[in-house]
Amino acid sequence: MKIGVVGLGKMGQAVAYRLIKGRFAVIGFDPDSTAREELKEMGGMPIDSVEELAKIVDVVWLMVPAGKIVDDVITAIKPKLKKDAVIIDGGNSHFPDSVRRAESLAQDGISYLDVGTSGGLNGRDIGFSLMVGGEKKVFDRLEPIFEALAAPNGYGYMGPAGAGHYVKMVHNGIEYALLQAYGDGFALLKKNNRYENFNLEEISRVWSNGSVIRSWIMDLAHNVFNKDQELIKVSGKVGGGSTGRWTVQESHEQNIPVPMIEKSLKIRDDSQKTGGNYATKVVAMLRNQFGGHKVEKV
Amino acid sequence: MKIGVVGLGKMGQAVAYRLIKGRFAVIGFDPDSTAREELKEMGGMPIDSVEELAKIVDVVWLMVPAGKIVDDVITAIKPKLKKDAVIIDGGNSHFPDSVRRAESLAQDGISYLDVGTSGGLNGRDIGFSLMVGGEKKVFDRLEPIFEALAAPNGYGYMGPAGAGHYVKMVHNGIEYALLQAYGDGFALLKKNNRYENFNLEEISRVWSNGSVIRSWIMDLAHNVFNKDQELIKVSGKVGGGSTGRWTVQESHEQNIPVPMIEKSLKIRDDSQKTGGNYATKVVAMLRNQFGGHKVEKV
Repeated sequence: MKIGVVGLGKMGQAVAYRLIKGRFAVIGFDPDSTAREELKEMGGMPIDSVEELAKIVDVVWLMVPAGKIVDDVITAIKPKLKKDAVIIDGGNSHFPDSVRRAESLAQDGISYLDVGTSGGLNGRDIGFSLMVGGEKKVFDRLEPIFEALAAPNGYGYMGPAGAGHYVKMVHNGIEYALLQAYGDGFALLKKNNRYENFNLEEISRVWSNGSVIRSWIMDLAHNVFNKDQELIKVSGKVGGGSTGRWTVQESHEQNIPVPMIEKSLKIRDDSQKTGGNYATKVVAMLRNQFGGHKVEKV
Repeated sequence: MKIGVVGLGKMGQAVAYRLIKGRFAVIGFDPDSTAREELKEMGGMPIDSVEELAKIVDVVWLMVPAGKIVDDVITAIKPKLKKDAVIIDGGNSHFPDSVRRAESLAQDGISYLDVGTSGGLNGRDIGFSLMVGGEKKVFDRLEPIFEALAAPNGYGYMGPAGAGHYVKMVHNGIEYALLQAYGDGFALLKKNNRYENFNLEEISRVWSNGSVIRSWIMDLAHNVFNKDQELIKVSGKVGGGSTGRWTVQESHEQNIPVPMIEKSLKIRDDSQKTGGNYATKVVAMLRNQFGGHKVEKV
């Protein structure tokens, strides 16, 4: 099975890497020539346009920013695709867009899966957590792909079109709240004047081993504090925000409260205006750890 | 080294178990004769009173509910202790109490360590996360005990008297917020009318493997949904609350905001009045998973 990966940024490259390791033939496109060169070095075949890619692959894995660019790529590749080809959107698209795209492509006989992809840059090595939406029979047919990409036991069929991105949206909402919860706690430990010498490196190490609040995010916190716990030069402005905002919007439309997610989104938004505080610095550093998201310097 | 464990409830028994496994001589007291019998079966030596226990041990590990009972036990054992004996409070005492007790006992030449103990019932098998406060030289001397009790790499010296319980207090505050964050997300998935067939067992399995939000709590969520995801008979009233309340109180005194922890405490308090919702049912079930905390039935 030939798989075309469109978008060879940090996450797209990791997807290509795992597919190649899983012995799939990987053809990749990215407008950046360095990214194409790197694909070649890892055993994939770079190609000069998405149209050329579409002609020869059985599956197109889109790993591009959510929004118009997804539609643009689909419009460009649609007329060139082989019969029975499948398009997979592995990015963070808003689920209603995925529903719309799946319905529209179905009219042209093209299958479409929406796959929420979690795990950050580390997923390249240990495998991703994949939430798949779309037609069950297409999921079944492409299961070897998901198996190659995912961590052991780390993929599953979530439901019809949009379900994969819906679950990923909620995942990200939870992520916002978890990050801020840890940020809160570390801020109190660091800034209180009762025990001024708390060592967050030590504390995060102890908490990473055996505690109720151990988690991958906690391991990343230990990586952060291992290097720097003053965070003086780190900006407390936290970026991102779209998936969390969609979660809160959906919560309002469905009349199901998600107070923790809503609060963390508010804090993130406020941090852009006020510059944030120690807690949001920790959040920014954690996002940098798992996703390579840029941290502003002050 | 002979260690006396006072309080052989769920956590005290787990402490005794690990100490015995670590080849320490364990003498244990609990007012409940069944608990004493169980200690005997696992290779420890039950004893009929704390006074008798105090006479023969080098270290007393208190695993009793926070509050007056800690002071009562200390008052009872203090006159009986051997020279150089150490009292360790492994429970969830409020840190100012630990400072007071350490200072008071120091006047009688008795060393006192406050040890925040995290990991829940599972700690019996994999070891606990231990946050130790008190005199550094006493910590150093008793390190073999902590090593036997803790998960690999799971203990550390936090600082002077009260520091262990302070760090554990913040740990618990974070725990409140994490639990509610997951509860929020699972509630939206379960109760939305857009994708009514989401399978939380599947979703929590996928999220447990490779995702950014993977954690021990997530593993416990999978255990919960594995058995039941409707939670119809589970009350949404969430118990506990003291350590979270102390965290929020300290946040106010120190003027360091912990908005996520404060929000989760508020939700927990409200649940007692309103009966809660699906999200707080999840929280109650998670607390039951890690700590064996009782879940009300409706």
